[in-house]
Amino acid sequence: MIHPKIPLAQTVIQLCKLKNIKHIIISPGSRNAPLTLGFSNDEFFKCYSIVDERCAAFFALGIAQQTKEPAAVVCTSGSALLNYYPAVAEAFFSDIPLIVLSADRPQHLIGIGDGQTINQKDVFEKNILYSANLKLDLKNEKGLSDKDELPMFKSLENKLERILGLQQSIQSYNEEEINKAFNLARFSKGPVHINIPFDEPLYDTVEELSINPKVEELDIKTVKIDQAELKDCIDEWYVSKKKMILIGVLPIGQIEQQWLNDLANDDSVIVFTETTSNVHHKNFFPSIDKMIAPLEEEDFKNLQPDILISIGGLIVSKKIKAFLRTYQPKHHWHVGEKNANDTFFCLSKHIVAKPNDFFSEFLPKITHVAKSSYLETWTAVKQLRHKRHLEYVKQIPFSDFKAFNLILKSISNKTILQLGNSSTIRYAQLFNMNPSLKVYCNRGTSGIDGSTSTALGCAVVSERQTTFITGDLSFFYDSNALWNNYIPKNFRIIVINNEGGGIFRILPGHKNTDNFDYFFETKHHLTAKQLCEMYGFEYTTAQNELELEGALKPFYNKSKQPRLLEVFTPRTENDSILLDYFKFVK
Amino acid sequence: MIHPKIPLAQTVIQLCKLKNIKHIIISPGSRNAPLTLGFSNDEFFKCYSIVDERCAAFFALGIAQQTKEPAAVVCTSGSALLNYYPAVAEAFFSDIPLIVLSADRPQHLIGIGDGQTINQKDVFEKNILYSANLKLDLKNEKGLSDKDELPMFKSLENKLERILGLQQSIQSYNEEEINKAFNLARFSKGPVHINIPFDEPLYDTVEELSINPKVEELDIKTVKIDQAELKDCIDEWYVSKKKMILIGVLPIGQIEQQWLNDLANDDSVIVFTETTSNVHHKNFFPSIDKMIAPLEEEDFKNLQPDILISIGGLIVSKKIKAFLRTYQPKHHWHVGEKNANDTFFCLSKHIVAKPNDFFSEFLPKITHVAKSSYLETWTAVKQLRHKRHLEYVKQIPFSDFKAFNLILKSISNKTILQLGNSSTIRYAQLFNMNPSLKVYCNRGTSGIDGSTSTALGCAVVSERQTTFITGDLSFFYDSNALWNNYIPKNFRIIVINNEGGGIFRILPGHKNTDNFDYFFETKHHLTAKQLCEMYGFEYTTAQNELELEGALKPFYNKSKQPRLLEVFTPRTENDSILLDYFKFVK
Repeated sequence: MIHPKIPLAQTVIQLCKLKNIKHIIISPGSRNAPLTLGFSNDEFFKCYSIVDERCAAFFALGIAQQTKEPAAVVCTSGSALLNYYPAVAEAFFSDIPLIVLSADRPQHLIGIGDGQTINQKDVFEKNILYSANLKLDLKNEKGLSDKDELPMFKSLENKLERILGLQQSIQSYNEEEINKAFNLARFSKGPVHINIPFDEPLYDTVEELSINPKVEELDIKTVKIDQAELKDCIDEWYVSKKKMILIGVLPIGQIEQQWLNDLANDDSVIVFTETTSNVHHKNFFPSIDKMIAPLEEEDFKNLQPDILISIGGLIVSKKIKAFLRTYQPKHHWHVGEKNANDTFFCLSKHIVAKPNDFFSEFLPKITHVAKSSYLETWTAVKQLRHKRHLEYVKQIPFSDFKAFNLILKSISNKTILQLGNSSTIRYAQLFNMNPSLKVYCNRGTSGIDGSTSTALGCAVVSERQTTFITGDLSFFYDSNALWNNYIPKNFRIIVINNEGGGIFRILPGHKNTDNFDYFFETKHHLTAKQLCEMYGFEYTTAQNELELEGALKPFYNKSKQPRLLEVFTPRTENDSILLDYFKFVK
Repeated sequence: MIHPKIPLAQTVIQLCKLKNIKHIIISPGSRNAPLTLGFSNDEFFKCYSIVDERCAAFFALGIAQQTKEPAAVVCTSGSALLNYYPAVAEAFFSDIPLIVLSADRPQHLIGIGDGQTINQKDVFEKNILYSANLKLDLKNEKGLSDKDELPMFKSLENKLERILGLQQSIQSYNEEEINKAFNLARFSKGPVHINIPFDEPLYDTVEELSINPKVEELDIKTVKIDQAELKDCIDEWYVSKKKMILIGVLPIGQIEQQWLNDLANDDSVIVFTETTSNVHHKNFFPSIDKMIAPLEEEDFKNLQPDILISIGGLIVSKKIKAFLRTYQPKHHWHVGEKNANDTFFCLSKHIVAKPNDFFSEFLPKITHVAKSSYLETWTAVKQLRHKRHLEYVKQIPFSDFKAFNLILKSISNKTILQLGNSSTIRYAQLFNMNPSLKVYCNRGTSGIDGSTSTALGCAVVSERQTTFITGDLSFFYDSNALWNNYIPKNFRIIVINNEGGGIFRILPGHKNTDNFDYFFETKHHLTAKQLCEMYGFEYTTAQNELELEGALKPFYNKSKQPRLLEVFTPRTENDSILLDYFKFVK
C-alpha cells in the first residue's frame, strides 16, 4: 500500500484508522497532499472530494449526525480553513463530532510573507471543544531549521542523539494530542481542530509505514446519579401537581418507549416535544407554538409548571422561552450529560446523566401519581386547537402554510426529514409529524449557511430516503452544496420559494416599505431551475394547491436523478395567513 | 430623518458618518435591525444588500481596495459573522481597511441556549487588527439585568444616579472603542471587528438622535527616516554593484515616475516587478518567472544581488523566493510603513516609510552611479526571453497559455483587471502587461474563495471598466458572488475552464492516476452557462483560437447586460505546454 512519506501524515492517518474515523471529506490543495495521498490510497476510508470547504464541513456534519461517529474534513493551508468555521460552530452547539484536519506550513514559514498562509493555530478557539497544534517532524537537517525547535549542539554525536530524542518526544507529543482530540470529539461530542505542519517535499510516498502510533483510550467513568439528589427529585415530584417536560433536539431512540409511556400517562405531567425531538406519544404536545400563542395571562398562570424538566438540545419555540422566563417553574432540572443551559434563568438542578438512565432510575421509584387535572385541562385545549387547525387549513388560500400542510402529509413513512432554517422549521412545528419520520435541523447556530450540505451528508450515509425542505434564501445561500458527486438518486429537495426571507415579514419590522423589502426580506426573483440543470436534478414546480398535489404524488418514487420541487407561494400574503392562524386556533 | 431608537446603534452609525465610512454592505437579519434601519434611512450612506456574508465581505473588500476608504459589513448574530472570516483574513494580509459590524445578543442571553447565538467576541482574533466588544446600553431596568453590569443598589435615588453614571461611562467606553477601531482600520490599513450587543425591541425608531458621539482623530506622527540609517543605506549603495528591487502588490500611483526612472536608468540596478505592482518602465523586469525559471547555478550566482530592496505586499513568484533564499543578498532592506516580512531569512533593515518618501530622500543623495554591467547583462537575457516567448506562443496549440496570450492582448486600455487565484495570476505574470491597466489579485491569503465578489466590489465603485479573469474552480467556488443587484453592465468575466484545478497538474504530484484527477485536480464537467442564465449575464464560449479571437473582439463593447466569456482549454495538455515553455525560453 502507498503511504505518504512524512511520518506525521502517517501518524494522523493511522490514528484515524485505529479510532474508526472512516468518512474523510477532502478539499483540493497542495499543502494537504500528504494527507490526501494517504487517505485516498487506503480502502479503509470512504473519501469524498468537495471543493468548497464551507459545504465540505456541513456535508461532514450531516454524515456525523447520522453515523454518530466523527467525520473528518481535510484542507490545505490559508483561508480554506476559515470556510469551515460556520459548520464548526454548528457542530459545537449541536454536539456533533467533527474533526478538522488542516495542513499548515512549518512555523518558520509563517509570518514571513509566504503565500496562502494565515495564523491557523487555535483559529476556532471561541467555538470549539479542543484545538491541537501539532509539531513538525524533525526528519532531517532541514526540519531542524524550524526556529521553534532548533537547539544548538556542540558535537555531531551529541547532535544526532539529541535529534533522535527530540524527534521521539515530538512524535509522542503529536500522538498524545491527536488521541486527545479524537477522544474528545467522540466522547464529548463536538468539533476539534488538528493543525498539522508539513514541510516540502509533500508528494513523496513510501510502501511501508515508518511509524506505529499508540492509541490511547479514554477512561470513561460511568457517572452515577447522585442518590441524595435523586431523593430530592422524588420529594419535589411528589409535592408538585404540575410537571412539564420540554424536549428539544434529540437523536433517534434516546429514550425507551416505556419511560415515555409512563410520563405520557401521568395526570400531572405534560410533555412538550419539538419536531426535532424525535419522540412521540399521542398524549404528548408536539406543537408548542400552536398551544401557547393564543394564551392569555390567566391561561399562562394555569400552565405555569411547578417542575420543569428539560431534555435534549436547543429549543426552537420562542414562545415557550418567553413564557417560561415570565412564568418560571419552582424547579428547573436539566437532564443531560453535557452542560445545562439556564435558558429560563431558574435552573435549579443539572442531573448529569443520559435522559434514559435518569428516567430508568427515577420513574420506577415513583409509586403513586399526584392527583392533578394538569394533563386533562391541557389535552382539552390541544384537542380544540387541533380541530381549529383543521378548519383553518381548509379555508386559507395557497400559501406557505397550505404548502406545508400538503408537503408534510405527503412525506413517505420512515423518511429522514431535514429541515432548513428558519421559517421551514417553524412552520413544520405547527403540524403533527408522522412518528415514523426522523427529523433534523441545524439548530446549533440556526444558520441558513449549510442546511443543504448537511442534508446531503445525511442522505449519503442513510439507507432511508432523505427529503430536505428549505426556504429560498437558505437554498440559494448553500447552492454550492449541489456541487457534489455523491448525491443519491432518491434524494429530494423541496424549496418553498416566497421570493425572499419570509420570516422577516412575521417579525415586528417595517413591512412594505422599500427599505424593508430590500434589506430585510431581500426580495429576489431567482428560481432553482438553472441550478437543477447545472447539477443534474429533475426539476418540477408548483404554483397552487392543485399543482402541488399533482407534483407530490410521484415525487418520492424511484428516479434516475435526484429531484427538486420548487413551490412558489405569495410573498405578501404568507405573513398574515400565519399571524391570523394564531388568532384563529384560539 | 428616521433613526433607530437604541442609542448604541445611533452611536455606531453617527461615528461611521463622521469618519466618512460610506459604503455599507448589509446582510439580512433581525438582531442587526437597528443598524440596518439607521444606515438605510440615511442618504449619506451607500447601502448594498447581499445575502451570503462570505460574498458580502469580499464585495466590501473590493470596494475598499479601490476607494482606499474603509467599507463596512453589517450582519446579524450567530454563524453569519463567521462567514466573513475568509475576507477578514484577506484584508488583514492585504492591508485593506474592512470594518465588520456584528450585532449580538446581550451578554446575559449568551450561553444559555438561545437560538442563533455563538461566542462572537474576539472571534477573528488571530487574523485581525483589532476587535472591539461594545457594551449594552443601560437604558432601562431590563438593560440593568445584564449580569456583567448589575450592581446592587440600596436606595432608589442612589440607584438612578448610579444608572446614569454607569450609562455615561458605558457610552464613552463604546465611543472610544469605535473610534479606536475606525482609526486603526484607516491608518493601519486592515480589518477590525466591532461586536455590538442589542436588546429587544430592535425595530423601534425615533425622529431625533439621542446621542452626540465624539470623534477622536488619530494623532498621526509623520515618521521621519532616521538619518543615520539613511547614511548607512547610502554607504552600502555605493559599494554595491548589484542592486535588485523587488516590487510586490502595490496600489496605483504609490511611487512617482521620476524615482522609477532614476532606478530604471541605473546600470547597477534591476527592478523586478510583479503584475500586481502596478509600476512600469521599459527597463524593468516584469516577468520574473520567465527570467528565472531557465537559469542554472552559474547564472544564479551572477544574478545574486548585493542589496535587495523589497517594496509592496506579497510576492507571487515562488521561483524568486526560492532563488533569494538560496542566493541571499548581503543586505535586504524592506521599505514600507507596516511590518516587514523576512521572506528570504536575511532581512537587515526595515525602513519605516512610504516607498516614495524613502526614494525622494534617498535617490537625490546618490550623486554617482556605480560602474556595473548588472542591468546590461540581464537586459540581454530579458530580450532573449522575450524573443523566445514570441516564438513559443506562435508554435503551441490552443491551451491555457495561448488563451492568456490572446486575452491579455485584447484587454482595452485603462481597464481594471482583476485576476483570480492561482493559475490565473501565475499565467498573467508571464506576459507583458499593458501599462495603462490597473491590476489586482487577492494575494493576502491567495484564496480562491472570494475573487469574483472582490472584482464586483471593485467594478461597482470604479469608473473604468472592470474585467475579471478566473479559473473554473475559483469561479464556481464564489458563484454566489453573482447574486448581487449592483453588477455594472460593462462588467466582464472571462472563465478559463480547464475542467478542474489545472495548477495541481503543474505541481510534482501523481498525475494521471484516478486519485489525482479526483482529489487534487477535482475534475468536473460544469460550465458557467446556467449561472449566466440565472443571474442575467450574456454568455459566450470559445473552444479554440479562432473562436476566442472572434469572441474577444466585441466582448468589451457597450452591452445591456454584463458579459461572461467561457474559454474551454484542454485539461491534460495545459501543464506540459507551460512546463515546456520554461525550457523553451532559455
